[in-house]
Amino acid sequence: MPLWYRFYRFLDRSASQGLRGLRVTVTPGGCDVMEGGALSSLETPALVVDLDKVKRNVQTMKERCEGGGVRLRPHMKTHKTLECADIMTGGSRRCIVVSTLAEACFYGDHGYDDILYAYPLPFDKVERCATLSERLDLFQVLLDHPEALERLRRRPLAGGRLWHVWLKLDCGNGRAGVLHSDAGAVQLAQAIAGAEGVELTGVYAHCGNTYYCKGVEQIQAVAQETTDLTLQFMEKLKAVGITCKSSIGSTPSCSHPVKDMSRLSEVHPGNYVFYDMQQSLIGSCSLEDVAVRVLTRVIGHCPHRNQLLIDCGWCGLSQDGSGKLPTGYAVIEGHPNLKLASMTQEHGRVEPLSGALDFGRYPLGALLQLIPYHACATAMMHPVYHVHSGGRLLGQWRPTRGW
Amino acid sequence: MPLWYRFYRFLDRSASQGLRGLRVTVTPGGCDVMEGGALSSLETPALVVDLDKVKRNVQTMKERCEGGGVRLRPHMKTHKTLECADIMTGGSRRCIVVSTLAEACFYGDHGYDDILYAYPLPFDKVERCATLSERLDLFQVLLDHPEALERLRRRPLAGGRLWHVWLKLDCGNGRAGVLHSDAGAVQLAQAIAGAEGVELTGVYAHCGNTYYCKGVEQIQAVAQETTDLTLQFMEKLKAVGITCKSSIGSTPSCSHPVKDMSRLSEVHPGNYVFYDMQQSLIGSCSLEDVAVRVLTRVIGHCPHRNQLLIDCGWCGLSQDGSGKLPTGYAVIEGHPNLKLASMTQEHGRVEPLSGALDFGRYPLGALLQLIPYHACATAMMHPVYHVHSGGRLLGQWRPTRGW
Repeated sequence: MPLWYRFYRFLDRSASQGLRGLRVTVTPGGCDVMEGGALSSLETPALVVDLDKVKRNVQTMKERCEGGGVRLRPHMKTHKTLECADIMTGGSRRCIVVSTLAEACFYGDHGYDDILYAYPLPFDKVERCATLSERLDLFQVLLDHPEALERLRRRPLAGGRLWHVWLKLDCGNGRAGVLHSDAGAVQLAQAIAGAEGVELTGVYAHCGNTYYCKGVEQIQAVAQETTDLTLQFMEKLKAVGITCKSSIGSTPSCSHPVKDMSRLSEVHPGNYVFYDMQQSLIGSCSLEDVAVRVLTRVIGHCPHRNQLLIDCGWCGLSQDGSGKLPTGYAVIEGHPNLKLASMTQEHGRVEPLSGALDFGRYPLGALLQLIPYHACATAMMHPVYHVHSGGRLLGQWRPTRGW
Repeated sequence: MPLWYRFYRFLDRSASQGLRGLRVTVTPGGCDVMEGGALSSLETPALVVDLDKVKRNVQTMKERCEGGGVRLRPHMKTHKTLECADIMTGGSRRCIVVSTLAEACFYGDHGYDDILYAYPLPFDKVERCATLSERLDLFQVLLDHPEALERLRRRPLAGGRLWHVWLKLDCGNGRAGVLHSDAGAVQLAQAIAGAEGVELTGVYAHCGNTYYCKGVEQIQAVAQETTDLTLQFMEKLKAVGITCKSSIGSTPSCSHPVKDMSRLSEVHPGNYVFYDMQQSLIGSCSLEDVAVRVLTRVIGHCPHRNQLLIDCGWCGLSQDGSGKLPTGYAVIEGHPNLKLASMTQEHGRVEPLSGALDFGRYPLGALLQLIPYHACATAMMHPVYHVHSGGRLLGQWRPTRGW
C-alpha cells in the first residue's frame, strides 16, 4: 500500500472519528441545522470550516515534517477542539502543544497525552500543573526563569514522578524566553537538568518574528537564524554534558522549512490547520489553502453613504487585522472591490473600494463570505464551528475556552 | 419609606437573587475558587466585576431616568448574564433590549419578557422570532426596510397575535436605520401601522455618534440633536394619524441626558452597568465608576527590552482600543507609568512610558489590574465573570454567547 494512500486513509478515518457522536442539531441560539444541508442553511454570522482544506493542510505539513525527518507536535491554540486535534494527530491523541492550561485539561480529559503546555510556568497554576503531571503519562511544562524552577522543586510530584520541563529560549522573537546569548541560559538549563524531581526535556523556541516577513526568502532567513541559534545552544549544552530535545515553530517557518530544521527534534506550528489572510500575505500559504470563512448576510442598504450593512461585527470576526488589508478587516470572497470598512459589536459596514455600490447585486439577506485576517482570533469569537465538505454541512465542532 | 431606601432595598434583593444558586466553585479551566476569598486567589487572566459599582451605576441611571420621567429599558449586550440583568431590571425581569437573538432566547428561557431585539430584522431568523413572539407576552422586533415588513406579513403569528415592531431611525449615527430625513421613513411607519398582523410599537434611534464626543457639552449636543430629530419625526407621524412610543439611547447620552429626552417614551443604554476607559474618556463617567478589571500576573522579566510580560493577551482583553490610549491597550491601575504596548494571543508586553523599569517592583507572579478600554469587547472574551464586593469574591456570572 503506497504511503500517500495510507496517509489519506488515516485522515479519512480520523476525520470521521472526529465527527462521530457530536451534538449536531442545535446551535447555542437554538436554530436547527440540517446535516448535509447547504452552507446557506446556516444562520449568520457563522464560522465555517472546510474539512477538505483542513485535511489537505494537515497532510501537507505532516508529509513535510516526515520528509525532513523532524517530529511534528501540532499546536492546538487556533481551534481548541477535539475533532480538529484528532485530525492533526492522525487519531493518535498524542504529541500536542497547548497555549492554556484549560486546553491541557480539556485534552487530558479526553484521552490525550504527551501534552506540552508551552507557556512560561504561571505561578498561580503550579498545583493544577502538578495534578496533570501526576495524572497523565507525559505532561510537560515550560519555563524561562530560575524562580519558576524553584516553584517546581517546592512541589515534588507523587510517586517519584518527574516534572518534564522545556527551557524556553528567545532566539530573536522578543516575547517569552531567556535570551539565547544570555550566559544565564546555559546555567538555567544546567539547574533544570540537575534539580531533583525534575527532568530537562528540551529547549523550545518560537519564531513568531516570522510574522513580520513577506515572502519565502524572508521567512526562511528567520527560520534559518532561529534554527542556527537553537542548534548552537544545543552545542553549548552538549559541551556541559547535557543532551535533550529541541523544538522551534511557527506556521510560516514550518510551511517553508530550511534544511537544517531536520537537525531539530520537533517543530510545533498550529495555525497551518486553518491558515488565514495574514499567513497568505506573509507567504506561508496560498489563498486557496485558507480553510475558514465567516458567513454573513446583508442586513442593510445605505445608498446615501454608498454602504451595505452586514450582520458580522467584531463579535463574529474579532478586531484583528485593523489597518492591515486594503479591503479592511477581511477579504470578502468573490468581491474584490468590497471593503469591510468598520465594525461595531454586531454590525459591519461594507463599501466599495471605488465607484458606486451596485445594491441590486447585494439584496437584503444575500450571503457573503469573509476570509479572516487572523484565524486564531476569529475562531476565538465563536462557540461553535460549522464543518463542511464541498459546501455540504457535516457537523459542528465546539472549542474549549478559558485558562 | 423614603425612595432612596426602597431603591437600595430592591438593589440588595436583586443582587442576592442574582447570586443565589450559581455554580460557584469550578471555572472552565478547573480551578477551585473560594467564595469569600480575595481577588488574589483567582487564577489569571480573570475578568472581575465590582458588584458595588455595578449597583451604584444601575442606581444612578435608574434615578436619572425616574427623575426625567422616561422609562429605562436597559441593554444586555455588555454583560449577557442573568444575574446582571436581574440587577438592571430590579428583579422585574421585564423591559430589556438585546443585541442578538441568542440573548433574547436566553432571557426568554429564564422568565424574562418585554424583550426588544434591537437589530435590523435578519431574514434568516424570522422563524425563530416568530416562535419567540408566540411564546412570550411581548417580544419586539425592529426593522428599517419595507422588505423586512413583507417578511413579517408572510409569517402571520398564531392565535391572532401581533408582530410588535419598532421602526429603526438613523438620526445621524450612520449605522442601521432609515434616514430621519428620508420621505420613505414616514411611509414605512405608515406601512407598518397599516399592515395586518403587525403593530407599530415605536420609533428607535441609537445615538452611537456620542462615542466620538469629548466631554459633556459635545455629548449633550448629540443627545439634543437625536432627541430633536426623533421628536420631529414623531410629529410627522402624528400628522398622519400615527402615535407610538419613541426611544433613543447610548450610554454617553443617557449619562448626561438633555431635558427634552423626558419627552421620549424610553431610553436604552447598556454599557453604563460596567462603564470603561472609553466612556471615561468620552466623559460619560469618572474612572471611579468603571466596575470591571482584568486581573493579570507578571510572567516574565525582559530587562534587555525594558519590558515585563503579563499573562493577558488579546484572548483576555480583546484588541479594542488599539492606539486610543497613551498607555496602550488598557490602563494599568495604580501604575500610570506603565503601558500595555502590545499583545499576542496569551501574552502582553508591558513597558514604562519613560525611564527604566523597576523590576523589583514587579516580581514574577505579581498581580496587576487592567482597566479595559471597551468593557463590551473585553467581557465578550470571558466565559465567566468573577463578582466581588470590596475585593471579596461573591460568585460567578456566566454569559450567553452566539447569535
